[in-house]
Amino acid sequence: MSNASTLRGKKAVVLLSGGLDSATTLYCARAQGYAPLCLVFDYGQRHRREISAARRIARKAGCPCAVLKIRLPWAGSSLLDASLPVPGADPRRLKRAGRGKEIPSTYVPGRNILFLSYAVSCAEAIGAQAIFIGANALDYSGYPDCRPQFIAAFRQVIARGTRSGVQSRAVQVRAPLIDKTKAQIVRLAKKLSVPLELTWSCYAGAAAPCGTCDSCFLRARGFKEAGMEDPALQRTTRHGANG
Amino acid sequence: MSNASTLRGKKAVVLLSGGLDSATTLYCARAQGYAPLCLVFDYGQRHRREISAARRIARKAGCPCAVLKIRLPWAGSSLLDASLPVPGADPRRLKRAGRGKEIPSTYVPGRNILFLSYAVSCAEAIGAQAIFIGANALDYSGYPDCRPQFIAAFRQVIARGTRSGVQSRAVQVRAPLIDKTKAQIVRLAKKLSVPLELTWSCYAGAAAPCGTCDSCFLRARGFKEAGMEDPALQRTTRHGANG
Repeated sequence: MSNASTLRGKKAVVLLSGGLDSATTLYCARAQGYAPLCLVFDYGQRHRREISAARRIARKAGCPCAVLKIRLPWAGSSLLDASLPVPGADPRRLKRAGRGKEIPSTYVPGRNILFLSYAVSCAEAIGAQAIFIGANALDYSGYPDCRPQFIAAFRQVIARGTRSGVQSRAVQVRAPLIDKTKAQIVRLAKKLSVPLELTWSCYAGAAAPCGTCDSCFLRARGFKEAGMEDPALQRTTRHGANG
Repeated sequence: MSNASTLRGKKAVVLLSGGLDSATTLYCARAQGYAPLCLVFDYGQRHRREISAARRIARKAGCPCAVLKIRLPWAGSSLLDASLPVPGADPRRLKRAGRGKEIPSTYVPGRNILFLSYAVSCAEAIGAQAIFIGANALDYSGYPDCRPQFIAAFRQVIARGTRSGVQSRAVQVRAPLIDKTKAQIVRLAKKLSVPLELTWSCYAGAAAPCGTCDSCFLRARGFKEAGMEDPALQRTTRHGANG
């Protein structure tokens, strides 16, 4: 992690997946005056394209980026197992997702718990004051680890189970998009000059976005409601695959 | 993880490091009627000998065992960085450790948070009802992630951030040694026929236990107070290195 030594100012660890939400979160961290270190996870996801998207976004933002390879040998998710189909978006189910009881097959057990755990370990080791995560609990798939009550519980874990926590300087967990609609996120991204054309949201792992999975559906609706064209789609259409 | 399919009965994921506490915890899980799957972490620790100890203990207990290789490229601990000295035990400091503010250089940022995160991911994927961890907050080094308030906070993370949690069948976190003295753990281990001769506790990573680190000191005091000889030490003395 030689990159860590190049960080200046107050440091933050930003969980960057390469999608719309995490890219916008990275630019939020920058706008708040943090020097971000981007943590990217290669966790066996079928949509590996998001990893190269994340690298490009970090480079564009001028931020160091560490890609961590982690393996969950127990699978159990259509996001890890290419033999399982990624379900198409169902607007009625997505509407009910806020209740958090109906969880799609793309759920990866413990994913954000693991990502935040790595982030807090990194933050303590490099002396970062905050972790940024792009979790969002409005226009989302219904994953329980994207909800504010989960983020609040994780803050308690840091307060009680880490050196920074017991020494009353707990690493903060910031989730600036947690209560925003996808349209609000799109508008915020535009305001912050996020390189939207570099972001990748589709779960399916093909050369172009499938247009039918939860992630494609929510993204398209967000751009539509914001009254904007999606520059990543334009790019895909112009140049073929995005990446 | 083909081993997982061989599990019978109610399943548990047991975090096994190869030391006295986690081996005793494994035998507690068995005694409570669980079919344990042992999770062992190769996290770059200097005392890698504990990994082979863990494998032997799992084999002896007749339990499947998965070794996960994880990397924390940010180091920052004398347990990961062999160029830093492992401090000798200071009984006065250990007495103060319960307050949780004085943390030795062997602290690994976020270690038990990470281990529990992997365990809950595994537990949900294989349908295990419980996770067992050998954390102990009496005769310990003062790590904040070994204390009951940390375990309680992590239970809330599972309740709010996982599928099992929001579906009111949260994976349980059991820490059967949390309030026991080391002498009580030694006696319990004897009662449960834990293969103590196979356990490895020393932090230092040499061929034989150093006898001076926190872990060696606490172990020796526990055996002394329990009025027992340490069979691992006898084995080392008789056969040279234990492993």
